[in-house]
Amino acid sequence: MGGNQFGTIFRVTTFGESHGPALGCVVDGCPAGVPLDREALRGELQRRRPGGGGPATTRHEEDTPEILSGVFEGKTLGSPIAIMVRNTNQHSGDYEALRDVYRPGHADWTWEAKYGFRDHRGGGRSSGRETLGRVAAGAVAKALLREYGMRIQAWTSSVAGIAVPGPQDPGFDPAEGEQNPLRIPHRETAAQVLRVIEQIRAEGDSAGGTVSCVVHGVPAGLGEPVFGKLDALLAGAMLSLGAAKGIEFGEGFAAACGRGSCQNDRPIPAAVQALPPQVPGLRYQSNRAGGILGGISTGMALEFRVAFKPVPSISKAQQTVDRRGTVRELSIRGRHDVCMVPRAVPVVEAMTALVLADLLLLHRADRIRSEPYGPCP
Amino acid sequence: MGGNQFGTIFRVTTFGESHGPALGCVVDGCPAGVPLDREALRGELQRRRPGGGGPATTRHEEDTPEILSGVFEGKTLGSPIAIMVRNTNQHSGDYEALRDVYRPGHADWTWEAKYGFRDHRGGGRSSGRETLGRVAAGAVAKALLREYGMRIQAWTSSVAGIAVPGPQDPGFDPAEGEQNPLRIPHRETAAQVLRVIEQIRAEGDSAGGTVSCVVHGVPAGLGEPVFGKLDALLAGAMLSLGAAKGIEFGEGFAAACGRGSCQNDRPIPAAVQALPPQVPGLRYQSNRAGGILGGISTGMALEFRVAFKPVPSISKAQQTVDRRGTVRELSIRGRHDVCMVPRAVPVVEAMTALVLADLLLLHRADRIRSEPYGPCP
Amino acid sequence: MGGNQFGTIFRVTTFGESHGPALGCVVDGCPAGVPLDREALRGELQRRRPGGGGPATTRHEEDTPEILSGVFEGKTLGSPIAIMVRNTNQHSGDYEALRDVYRPGHADWTWEAKYGFRDHRGGGRSSGRETLGRVAAGAVAKALLREYGMRIQAWTSSVAGIAVPGPQDPGFDPAEGEQNPLRIPHRETAAQVLRVIEQIRAEGDSAGGTVSCVVHGVPAGLGEPVFGKLDALLAGAMLSLGAAKGIEFGEGFAAACGRGSCQNDRPIPAAVQALPPQVPGLRYQSNRAGGILGGISTGMALEFRVAFKPVPSISKAQQTVDRRGTVRELSIRGRHDVCMVPRAVPVVEAMTALVLADLLLLHRADRIRSEPYGPCP
Amino acid sequence: MGGNQFGTIFRVTTFGESHGPALGCVVDGCPAGVPLDREALRGELQRRRPGGGGPATTRHEEDTPEILSGVFEGKTLGSPIAIMVRNTNQHSGDYEALRDVYRPGHADWTWEAKYGFRDHRGGGRSSGRETLGRVAAGAVAKALLREYGMRIQAWTSSVAGIAVPGPQDPGFDPAEGEQNPLRIPHRETAAQVLRVIEQIRAEGDSAGGTVSCVVHGVPAGLGEPVFGKLDALLAGAMLSLGAAKGIEFGEGFAAACGRGSCQNDRPIPAAVQALPPQVPGLRYQSNRAGGILGGISTGMALEFRVAFKPVPSISKAQQTVDRRGTVRELSIRGRHDVCMVPRAVPVVEAMTALVLADLLLLHRADRIRSEPYGPCP
Repeated sequence: MGGNQFGTIFRVTTFGESHGPALGCVVDGCPAGVPLDREALRGELQRRRPGGGGPATTRHEEDTPEILSGVFEGKTLGSPIAIMVRNTNQHSGDYEALRDVYRPGHADWTWEAKYGFRDHRGGGRSSGRETLGRVAAGAVAKALLREYGMRIQAWTSSVAGIAVPGPQDPGFDPAEGEQNPLRIPHRETAAQVLRVIEQIRAEGDSAGGTVSCVVHGVPAGLGEPVFGKLDALLAGAMLSLGAAKGIEFGEGFAAACGRGSCQNDRPIPAAVQALPPQVPGLRYQSNRAGGILGGISTGMALEFRVAFKPVPSISKAQQTVDRRGTVRELSIRGRHDVCMVPRAVPVVEAMTALVLADLLLLHRADRIRSEPYGPCP
Repeated sequence: MGGNQFGTIFRVTTFGESHGPALGCVVDGCPAGVPLDREALRGELQRRRPGGGGPATTRHEEDTPEILSGVFEGKTLGSPIAIMVRNTNQHSGDYEALRDVYRPGHADWTWEAKYGFRDHRGGGRSSGRETLGRVAAGAVAKALLREYGMRIQAWTSSVAGIAVPGPQDPGFDPAEGEQNPLRIPHRETAAQVLRVIEQIRAEGDSAGGTVSCVVHGVPAGLGEPVFGKLDALLAGAMLSLGAAKGIEFGEGFAAACGRGSCQNDRPIPAAVQALPPQVPGLRYQSNRAGGILGGISTGMALEFRVAFKPVPSISKAQQTVDRRGTVRELSIRGRHDVCMVPRAVPVVEAMTALVLADLLLLHRADRIRSEPYGPCP
Repeated sequence: MGGNQFGTIFRVTTFGESHGPALGCVVDGCPAGVPLDREALRGELQRRRPGGGGPATTRHEEDTPEILSGVFEGKTLGSPIAIMVRNTNQHSGDYEALRDVYRPGHADWTWEAKYGFRDHRGGGRSSGRETLGRVAAGAVAKALLREYGMRIQAWTSSVAGIAVPGPQDPGFDPAEGEQNPLRIPHRETAAQVLRVIEQIRAEGDSAGGTVSCVVHGVPAGLGEPVFGKLDALLAGAMLSLGAAKGIEFGEGFAAACGRGSCQNDRPIPAAVQALPPQVPGLRYQSNRAGGILGGISTGMALEFRVAFKPVPSISKAQQTVDRRGTVRELSIRGRHDVCMVPRAVPVVEAMTALVLADLLLLHRADRIRSEPYGPCP
Repeated sequence: MGGNQFGTIFRVTTFGESHGPALGCVVDGCPAGVPLDREALRGELQRRRPGGGGPATTRHEEDTPEILSGVFEGKTLGSPIAIMVRNTNQHSGDYEALRDVYRPGHADWTWEAKYGFRDHRGGGRSSGRETLGRVAAGAVAKALLREYGMRIQAWTSSVAGIAVPGPQDPGFDPAEGEQNPLRIPHRETAAQVLRVIEQIRAEGDSAGGTVSCVVHGVPAGLGEPVFGKLDALLAGAMLSLGAAKGIEFGEGFAAACGRGSCQNDRPIPAAVQALPPQVPGLRYQSNRAGGILGGISTGMALEFRVAFKPVPSISKAQQTVDRRGTVRELSIRGRHDVCMVPRAVPVVEAMTALVLADLLLLHRADRIRSEPYGPCP
């Protein structure tokens, strides 16, 4: 993991600047024979696009993916899968005013400090648009995980401090989450958040929030000790998202306040278990651990939550500095999300898929006889 | 990053089971010519040992490191630095009763599900003792960072829900933190926590907590976009610690509740700046970002906080399952920490050092002329 | 190095099947600020195209590269450089007859044994056309090496057993090598080889040969002990070319027959030496070592030679087996090179450039003060 | 691959200087459950030690391995396997005279040019003694390969220009090769070579030679296109040996002189084939390809040959340069092999085993259902 590459066996490279000719990814190491549906791929990219009426930018992005290699007759070949999305609707002119000024909360100055040179148009590679390549790669990973019965679901779990009821609460409805542009799976809360967002927009300000993610169908035994633990890889994956400021698994920070006697999930015998015969069936009465013990999946649902800071681009006036080192007042115009948390939902899912796909393939190498579970029949 | 290896250029491999012959590390990719002080190395290993009177296990660990290679006449050679610590005080017999039973909150069963086979003595590789190799490697990384003026400081910032005052609060005293076995840099809070821990010990239970970490002297420009971001690597590093359940940078989860106008740190001109001439000097009036923007260091102090769950081994009776799939009641005897958070402090520092050392070396490759700052004179 | 990725810091991923939509590469880890000339890139790709009148296929390949990312205002940004070449002139129909038959000397069956599935059109990923991505990436590496004064030159040094005179021989003329389609830098030999090739073509057969490569301007000190030695990386790079069957450095296999007293190059003092002051200037009176000692460059010219087997596709009738396991006689029609050695010349250069670029960047991390030589003034 | 690490899944790190405290390796990524015999490990290390009466150094090396981790109750745990060999018989004093002089044909000066600093005692990390760690790691890899029925055999195939008859020739006897210290599996040739070596020793000179290697039982389908080809990885592995100057596979350089119609091995149907059902059985009537097509194993024996230059340390007087840049005459005393080719035999086998073990594990990830062949029953 590093640079623009992610993964050990299921290896992804993403490329592309916000306002360059194209963005995309190359997935290397995907097994041959995985059915890859172009419509599913297009659908994932649509999910990260701004929806209508919601908190997102009104920039119209086509984001039509083109598969350049690695797929033949509807199945993966085992060779690298390159996917490209052309940038078609760039308004580079919008950014001309920003050529010499460092936007607060953005990577403008740190990037220049690092490279001595940057593409000032829309943040270049540090733009949220960079996640397009991740979502495309994640769609390939999801296709692989589907063969093994894993199902990833993320949603907006809070915005601007307003908590969204969770899966155990009444009114939680994943289908609702996919329908409304806020990705909030709870109708009343969605309506409430929408009102708050409109108010924040009127103030020229922006909001942050959290994304929760649950994965069902994760078999026990995924995760590579000690640096490639399932939670370590997920944490690295999530904090690689531009606005992410924190992550917690299961009880998370609350666990730090509790007692061992409460935090330990109680193991109970389980009659059926898709695992090698020599390991007795087992499940846990609760899931405070979030589906991970010692960095290895427990067979329970994988659960974690990611915190995102507010969008740094706001129209409210801010003080900053320009390239000549003089103080400037800045009011950022143009098309910006008031809250990008809903758009982070498919990206969180994509990164989760990349981690699980890689660990699934690595898992096969961990034992002499290594294929405890096959694809779903 | 993965398996038992960490880093891209400054690459560390750790090895050793809790009750095997030895533990240690090999550091590959450390530059030649770094002064490596054996006493500093020994000191780091002592810091993670159980102290007297504190919350830690009474297991007596010698933990004397032996440098097997890579150092000649007091300086690194550029070749791999292997460091070994022998296990001398193992009571494997303590664990015989645990051979067939899966301890709640431990990796016993997940490890067996993964590998079909495990070393049941003390958790084997999933034991906290595994961190010895990390601390040894971290001591090498710290020696390198010292040449560049970076200074890492971590401390216990909460135990069992009791918050420790921070650097801005009166009474905060880092020297105090190094003296008391709780690594709490605040005398009154340390005394209070000690009382709570004794009570928890009496109840046969355990406690979790948080570790905070600050790094001073980090130059602007460290971090590799997009998957090798500074915060991504640190998050992966911290969540690779057995009991870690969460991490947050700067304002962290609180940032998710705030507004963009508050969360953006205001850039201000800075007269002096150890950076290449073409980039104007700049610093930030506040540091809500925790020293990172867009995954790249800002030149401000690096700040983050890690949550650790309570020690899962408790003497209080717990229900669990054994290898035959029958329910068992378990009361774990032996030497176990009531709260291992203080012992995590040097490990958090070590992992931070590994991340920074790797990014420092990677940074040199990011520009044609790449050495904007040299070692301290 | 592995799969479709090459390099540690200067990391290249190539993608694309012979008859898929496009081929190309993503270069990750190239420093920011390298001038990248689109015409130089196009020129490199033209060099690997079939020339007129020579031994190569008459398939007309446009091979126009498009830079999708990573370059802004004529210079590299430090972000991934994606380059794509569309396949425009595919005659997939030519291959329909080969769908069910395994061509001798090709990877048809081994690929199917590996993946259970393949793109039969033109060999898919095992086609020589795959090298397009390498040449594009190599052009970026060459641009970087140019900044450091390194100059790579390869040529056809033998065809079908006919040896081409070397740099020390009269009549050797690199300019000539670039002009004639055989890449033979010696006019008379080129003419002789051309006659032999025409005869082989008439027989429906094919020929192999060797490519020699020399790099001038390699500073002393490049190469990573012990597995990342300069010769180890070059050997791995060259044997990753489809038809390569051997490599030798300096005296190579002849050195195995000699005595130590002859094979050792004699070190002599050198007045001027672009090296750090504490290392005395030194050069060698001869260069039997081919510019490498202990896997590290000596500052002398780097010299090696690669052996390529004959093109396996021949029109002469051959016996083989089809997917039903029955014996078949096969006479391969279509556009195939009689001898692809001349087209391997730019590919050998490209792979050499990738190795040197990666080692150059790695080198910066090997010492505390690491930049002994800067870019050319 | 790079630095002191080798492999992608089956990852090896070696450490140790010739005259430091210890040498060894850490093997990360070996599956759990592989029977690891300590005696087999010790035996491999003994094979690379100098034998009696042969061409090797008379330095007495104990080379007793100690397994520090990763093995429990005779089987691998899936955790890192650290193996250490202490240096017990060092005569560092022998090298004091060499502190300031650069030995011809050695890495003394290149190492110093690279790192600005070196361990002058016996070449430090560039010593042949570094291969101890490789042989130890190779013993682990061999144990894994044995479970899959692969059998590696290398031997001295030429010394000082004297060719040893091959497997097809009368008198070739592998058992003989293991008995005589020259590792020449042909009694008469061994006797002849011994006489030549004694003569060379008397002249104060040294000799090179070649090692041939054959692997039986390699299943079809191993090798990762395009940069991780089986031959690419083997070439990189072999050229990472200090004195290696070339490698060739199958017909090798001779293939470059032949015609396609001769070089193509003819596929023939094969009744029995341990491969997935959808791929028809197939074998080749000849094996000019050396068991590799398109970088993937064909199921035929793997065959290659490595060229080693003569030992550079000779007692004959040589001219060189010292650290002050003055010309010096040097006659190297001490214990040095006249010909180290026989000692390279187990190292060639070890590196072959590392490559195959890694590709075997990678292979499992290449298809959705990926385990076409299990361990031998």
